[in-house]
Amino acid sequence: MAEVKKIAVLTSGGDSQGMNAAVRAVVRSALFFGVEVYGIQRGYQGLLNRDIFPMDIRSVGDIIQRGGTILQSARCLEFLKPEGQEKGAEILREYGIDGLVVIGGDGSYNGANKLSKLGIKTMGLPGTIDNDISFTDYTIGFDTAVSIVVDAINKLRDTMSSHERSSVVEVMGRHCGDIALHAGLASGAETILVPEMPFDLDEVADRMKDNFAKGKRHSIVIVAEGVGKGEDIAQALKERHASIDARVTVLGHIQRGGSPTPADRNLASRLADFAVRKLIEGESGKACGMIKGELVLTDIDKVVNTKKDFNVELYNLASRLSQ
Amino acid sequence: MAEVKKIAVLTSGGDSQGMNAAVRAVVRSALFFGVEVYGIQRGYQGLLNRDIFPMDIRSVGDIIQRGGTILQSARCLEFLKPEGQEKGAEILREYGIDGLVVIGGDGSYNGANKLSKLGIKTMGLPGTIDNDISFTDYTIGFDTAVSIVVDAINKLRDTMSSHERSSVVEVMGRHCGDIALHAGLASGAETILVPEMPFDLDEVADRMKDNFAKGKRHSIVIVAEGVGKGEDIAQALKERHASIDARVTVLGHIQRGGSPTPADRNLASRLADFAVRKLIEGESGKACGMIKGELVLTDIDKVVNTKKDFNVELYNLASRLSQ
Amino acid sequence: MAEVKKIAVLTSGGDSQGMNAAVRAVVRSALFFGVEVYGIQRGYQGLLNRDIFPMDIRSVGDIIQRGGTILQSARCLEFLKPEGQEKGAEILREYGIDGLVVIGGDGSYNGANKLSKLGIKTMGLPGTIDNDISFTDYTIGFDTAVSIVVDAINKLRDTMSSHERSSVVEVMGRHCGDIALHAGLASGAETILVPEMPFDLDEVADRMKDNFAKGKRHSIVIVAEGVGKGEDIAQALKERHASIDARVTVLGHIQRGGSPTPADRNLASRLADFAVRKLIEGESGKACGMIKGELVLTDIDKVVNTKKDFNVELYNLASRLSQ
Amino acid sequence: MAEVKKIAVLTSGGDSQGMNAAVRAVVRSALFFGVEVYGIQRGYQGLLNRDIFPMDIRSVGDIIQRGGTILQSARCLEFLKPEGQEKGAEILREYGIDGLVVIGGDGSYNGANKLSKLGIKTMGLPGTIDNDISFTDYTIGFDTAVSIVVDAINKLRDTMSSHERSSVVEVMGRHCGDIALHAGLASGAETILVPEMPFDLDEVADRMKDNFAKGKRHSIVIVAEGVGKGEDIAQALKERHASIDARVTVLGHIQRGGSPTPADRNLASRLADFAVRKLIEGESGKACGMIKGELVLTDIDKVVNTKKDFNVELYNLASRLSQ
Repeated sequence: MAEVKKIAVLTSGGDSQGMNAAVRAVVRSALFFGVEVYGIQRGYQGLLNRDIFPMDIRSVGDIIQRGGTILQSARCLEFLKPEGQEKGAEILREYGIDGLVVIGGDGSYNGANKLSKLGIKTMGLPGTIDNDISFTDYTIGFDTAVSIVVDAINKLRDTMSSHERSSVVEVMGRHCGDIALHAGLASGAETILVPEMPFDLDEVADRMKDNFAKGKRHSIVIVAEGVGKGEDIAQALKERHASIDARVTVLGHIQRGGSPTPADRNLASRLADFAVRKLIEGESGKACGMIKGELVLTDIDKVVNTKKDFNVELYNLASRLSQ
Repeated sequence: MAEVKKIAVLTSGGDSQGMNAAVRAVVRSALFFGVEVYGIQRGYQGLLNRDIFPMDIRSVGDIIQRGGTILQSARCLEFLKPEGQEKGAEILREYGIDGLVVIGGDGSYNGANKLSKLGIKTMGLPGTIDNDISFTDYTIGFDTAVSIVVDAINKLRDTMSSHERSSVVEVMGRHCGDIALHAGLASGAETILVPEMPFDLDEVADRMKDNFAKGKRHSIVIVAEGVGKGEDIAQALKERHASIDARVTVLGHIQRGGSPTPADRNLASRLADFAVRKLIEGESGKACGMIKGELVLTDIDKVVNTKKDFNVELYNLASRLSQ
Repeated sequence: MAEVKKIAVLTSGGDSQGMNAAVRAVVRSALFFGVEVYGIQRGYQGLLNRDIFPMDIRSVGDIIQRGGTILQSARCLEFLKPEGQEKGAEILREYGIDGLVVIGGDGSYNGANKLSKLGIKTMGLPGTIDNDISFTDYTIGFDTAVSIVVDAINKLRDTMSSHERSSVVEVMGRHCGDIALHAGLASGAETILVPEMPFDLDEVADRMKDNFAKGKRHSIVIVAEGVGKGEDIAQALKERHASIDARVTVLGHIQRGGSPTPADRNLASRLADFAVRKLIEGESGKACGMIKGELVLTDIDKVVNTKKDFNVELYNLASRLSQ
Repeated sequence: MAEVKKIAVLTSGGDSQGMNAAVRAVVRSALFFGVEVYGIQRGYQGLLNRDIFPMDIRSVGDIIQRGGTILQSARCLEFLKPEGQEKGAEILREYGIDGLVVIGGDGSYNGANKLSKLGIKTMGLPGTIDNDISFTDYTIGFDTAVSIVVDAINKLRDTMSSHERSSVVEVMGRHCGDIALHAGLASGAETILVPEMPFDLDEVADRMKDNFAKGKRHSIVIVAEGVGKGEDIAQALKERHASIDARVTVLGHIQRGGSPTPADRNLASRLADFAVRKLIEGESGKACGMIKGELVLTDIDKVVNTKKDFNVELYNLASRLSQ
């Protein structure tokens, strides 16, 4: 009954925790349903390089808990061009591969969409820590990234309380403030600066000063990188009130590593299994997502052209609770 | 506009991670909306003992990240009887407290319901690691408990792979297999035994033997305590195939401790804020839950009389992927 | 100048965290000094099975942080007999291997000693979590095991404080109470029961009762497995004072897994490098240890026949501080 | 028999993990030996402000596992001057306090020394993550700081392996490269740059390039802040070989927070108990240290005027193993 007989899986763009759990689930679900599976090393670059190899049940053993991606990832300028895409489709056909699961972000989705139009059945899985992909509530890796940020802030609280200091923590998120929002709410950050919401540094500085006067022992400003450099924000606050001498922490790529949380592993497993089943049913050019607890398919075109809504209600709650 | 002017909050039953985040959010939301807040120490017992004290913004500072509950918890036989409940309502009235947020499990909900019928406006928040409360997808503490189990299994994998051994891990869940299910899926457990699903130990033992023959280097059986003791399951497997000499781990109360995950903190904050807002709107005798991403109120009567559905689809997925 | 041209490395007995760091250091040090290195899979069993393969710099890449042992471990009854040992020496000679590093506990050391007497140059490295090997202050894995126990007790404290309860925690250590001692001191355990020191359960029970009366909110009894089962200790305490209703936690093999602490990795690296250098210098039949910060060699005979001293001073300190 | 009847304890300078364990042990040891204990809040500033309060057994309950310091810390310019020091001694005498334990770094030691010359019996405990205090092998907090760095690098490895990238990690240590050295050895860093050892960036860049060519999948450069900014080192490497496009991580104050490791808690407990016993014996103006496993006293004068030796042997080992 399978529309597809042989599928491949690749990871592309920035890696995220849970990609390995997704690869594992693609492989094992496919085999369970009687479909052959190939792995492609280093994303679209590996495809063009024919870095393609068969995978079996054991080849994804003991990876569910590992950060990073065993398939590795790489940028591929050649694949941005039509000739590269055609070559990619050609190579897949050569191998008899008629379905492809692409795990990555928006850029990776675009590649999958092109291949879909060239006759390869494709499915996109949202693998990025930034949570900046629409038509899914959460992306694979987001929960882990938030955990890492919150764990770091836990550590900062200790030392800040001892010295009655403030901290500026710069987190990932160029266009999407979700890491800052969720980590800020969870860590009781006093101020959350995200690209989606306007803010006034004068007000922020005044509130920080007032709160210390009222007995608050530490104060955390969490900044999504899309808003600006943590260093610059700290400087701007100090210019407003010299008493605010905030230390700056830039978590950087640490946010992308570490063992995925159970929630990320399970999200990855569910989406990956869903992708395989939908490929088998003949779907193509679709992104898989989990919306309000339900697995959903959306046209990749629509996904890459829709900006994700920012949860203003949660943002307001964070501000209400972090007095 | 507030229907209530003064509320109290207590934690009751077994504690769970995130209870402190819930207490913090009750206090800060109430104060934000101009409502006074009292804390009650040691659950219903503390209520009867008049162990009641005013809380302000600072009294919940620096607790969002802490396991356990600063309000402590205790059993209270007296409160199971009508006289105890009437005395509780009387004491609350004495303090001028017209609303009460109860954080706990089913037993705690029953108490809240009784008080509601005695004229105190009450709200229940699902604080238990077991995820055994209906009309909410997740309870406060569940995500953290699952993380602790999965972290323990990560450690077991290392040593099991080195020795090519199997492990039986007994986890909490007397009537509800959700910890076993979610931790089992996330850790790639080969077998998940839960009270909701029938199983056949002969089959389990045969599959374990076969998988070792096929090259699997370790094998995890995760058992919800409602199914039986881990020790007995290990013994039963060994009787079937002497080669299955599984080590047993009983995680016990460790599952209830530790810093709550960001997801638990945020769930707690959202539910607690919702409870306060609904109390202010005049609601009573209701349990707060999050269902498919939406905050919902349900009659406590209905909640305590409805058994939570088990996610069979997820259970099947776990079995499909853990080959 | 090298006395040895080709060495092998194996791990044997129960695995411990840091064994991989030791394997890595054996391989890289040997290669650095111009000596060829072979890995032997599954301990002495693998030696007898000729499960022997050449290792290079990359074959130990990315393992320093992993628990378990990539070389795996296994029991080997055959190697306990003289014929097995002779066969082992024969096989090593066949491969041209003139030096062997054995990472493991007392049993593994005995094997190394036999091979030494059969003309193979051998070195023992103390790889066991129990810290029960003499002539080294610490064994590889001990620091990590203690960390795991202390982390578990941190979690227990949260929930015990909430309920004002006591806990009995059973930890590894059949003949050596060091895990119990170091974890007990670090976690402020009220009572530490070890095989090396006499104790009186009546006194323990009385003190626990008294301390609760004085306002202590939780009480931890840590028991080395050599003293008895945690379950039995809890029962015995309850029989003395019914109010002591301690929960029991048995950490089991979790204590052997997880990423090694930096201290264990560095201890492993230093000892392994030392072993290689000493083999090259022509030493044999020796165990490597770190005593008071100095790398030392001791005859394996002497090591296996000397019982490790118990640190009574530390034991008294723990009791002085845990009031 | 006690020379001192009443002692006080304060924490000063940058906080470090384990300070709370030290405070706990000072209080409990003193009480055990029949000496009264006072806490001084916010270091020398708190002394001058008479922020002094009696401590009992329970006042240090449940703090052994907490980062930061419950006594807080602060800078105090006034105490750098003779008048400030005399005022401090005067205030201590006023309270009848004849002994003082100071937990901190070199600056804090200097203050203790001045008070000693003014007739107050003082003891210094090495509380700083930098390990830059002489006459002790390790300072309180160092082991935890190294663990935090190594944990962060574990996370970076995941994502670096996926992308075959290099990372520059800047860690604390203005004059002392010990965090960089121990974390670098434990995480298999390819390059360790410390203030104590000369280095050549041309060589570093060449080796990185060569190693990638030989198949290494990631490369870590760990830089003690005393050497320069991570950002500048990354830039300098890129100028040498454009292919080295290293990501920079600055861990900052995260290194000072978090729950202390068991090793730090135990070191703190042992040193603090030793300090109390030596105060009771009448010693003063001394720093407590642990050297090669032995508790030792050294004149504070000598400690602050001696630069700690750098472990060149360990540095060479790290370079030998990180090929």
